[in-house]
Amino acid sequence: GSDVCSSDLGTGFHGWARQAGLRTVQGALEVALERALREPVQVVAAGRTDAGVHARGQVASFRAAVDDLEALARALNGMLGPEIAVAAREAPEGFHARFSATAREYVYRIRTVAEPDPFGHRYVWHLPEDLSVPAMRAAAALLVGEHDFAAFCRRPPSGGTVRRLERLSVRRTGEGIEIGARANAFLHQMVRSLVRMLVDVGRGKVDPAAVAGILAAGDRSRTPGPAPAQGLTLERVVYGRRPLTAARARG
Amino acid sequence: GSDVCSSDLGTGFHGWARQAGLRTVQGALEVALERALREPVQVVAAGRTDAGVHARGQVASFRAAVDDLEALARALNGMLGPEIAVAAREAPEGFHARFSATAREYVYRIRTVAEPDPFGHRYVWHLPEDLSVPAMRAAAALLVGEHDFAAFCRRPPSGGTVRRLERLSVRRTGEGIEIGARANAFLHQMVRSLVRMLVDVGRGKVDPAAVAGILAAGDRSRTPGPAPAQGLTLERVVYGRRPLTAARARG
Repeated sequence: GSDVCSSDLGTGFHGWARQAGLRTVQGALEVALERALREPVQVVAAGRTDAGVHARGQVASFRAAVDDLEALARALNGMLGPEIAVAAREAPEGFHARFSATAREYVYRIRTVAEPDPFGHRYVWHLPEDLSVPAMRAAAALLVGEHDFAAFCRRPPSGGTVRRLERLSVRRTGEGIEIGARANAFLHQMVRSLVRMLVDVGRGKVDPAAVAGILAAGDRSRTPGPAPAQGLTLERVVYGRRPLTAARARG
Repeated sequence: GSDVCSSDLGTGFHGWARQAGLRTVQGALEVALERALREPVQVVAAGRTDAGVHARGQVASFRAAVDDLEALARALNGMLGPEIAVAAREAPEGFHARFSATAREYVYRIRTVAEPDPFGHRYVWHLPEDLSVPAMRAAAALLVGEHDFAAFCRRPPSGGTVRRLERLSVRRTGEGIEIGARANAFLHQMVRSLVRMLVDVGRGKVDPAAVAGILAAGDRSRTPGPAPAQGLTLERVVYGRRPLTAARARG
């Protein structure tokens, strides 16, 4: 088996998962792999990103006989660029990008100053408002831990909605706020729903302490829905204790 | 008089200067100003960027009676976004974006790792090669100072080709190299021509010491021409001792 570490600017894609007649990252990758390897290849991703969501550290695995991984990566990058880029390596026996992953890390970027940013507008939510970082942090502290996140999930999976949110950080950057989220796994639209909740807290619309009750009630109609897709990026996938990055994939 | 600090992602523009029938930054800004102020307005920029070159800290001045600068900036951003963004402020009497400027600072970004970067491909030159930073720095040191830069100029202006290059720095970043250049003023394609020269030195094609002779000869046919436009960004314009930034324009 092999795996690729891929980055993609999700703006022009209907998300990760292959869909007939739509441009998706999985679809583009599988078409390119089939052309390069002259056999049909199915890939599995660690994080199945939604339409408009980006990835800097996506990991996807597939089974195929590959002679020269560097040549394969070059061929894939030639076919996939500029919106998707990959590095390739041999994976350990039994490796599965999704089931072997022990944690995923996302970052949501918000620009709060008045001027838009032409360089970042594709992967940042421009929200020129004063947000209270201390209030957002107080609410985030109530969300961290193992909980039933049904209130922050759009399509509940058959396996249930309990997840272990290991980190939900809020930090001020030069011109906005970055929200970092790490969990063993995330539910559908969970990061964006958590971010939108924190933004409502930061705006003063929701009291930070109220977030515990909203989480416990498990009622999606009491949450404000998801923040816009374009601000979200899957930054890293962790296997065992260490994230798998393009640098390691090269090594 | 007023001035705007503007940013633009130059990818979709034929440079700064207005040209009949072509999409340029000056043209877009003047059309938006005329719509907002209901009178024809001419703007002057500190750095007239070439086609495909970007700006994060461009400064442009114009004369007009403006009641509410914040409202004007909002109206302009609504018309110009997402590829151009502005902040506006009242300028001191006699201020001229170009002639009052005492220095310009550019950064040229090169990505040297094998994988392309979907997030930065619009403003980075992807050159997956090993470049010797020490050699590039040795050559850069020979270029700094007041010199006749005719060898690094595409269209020599009537005022001559002597410029004072105050800084030409080469630094390694996580995945590539950034070249910073600061001068009282730059000639046409001067930064990109200097960058391309340094890249040839970094590749080992040109000995660092040879650069002094190439500069002194003043012969453009002995230089390798300009690096690609997309890697270059005008980062800051300096007036007196301090750069004028969007943050100061807001203040």
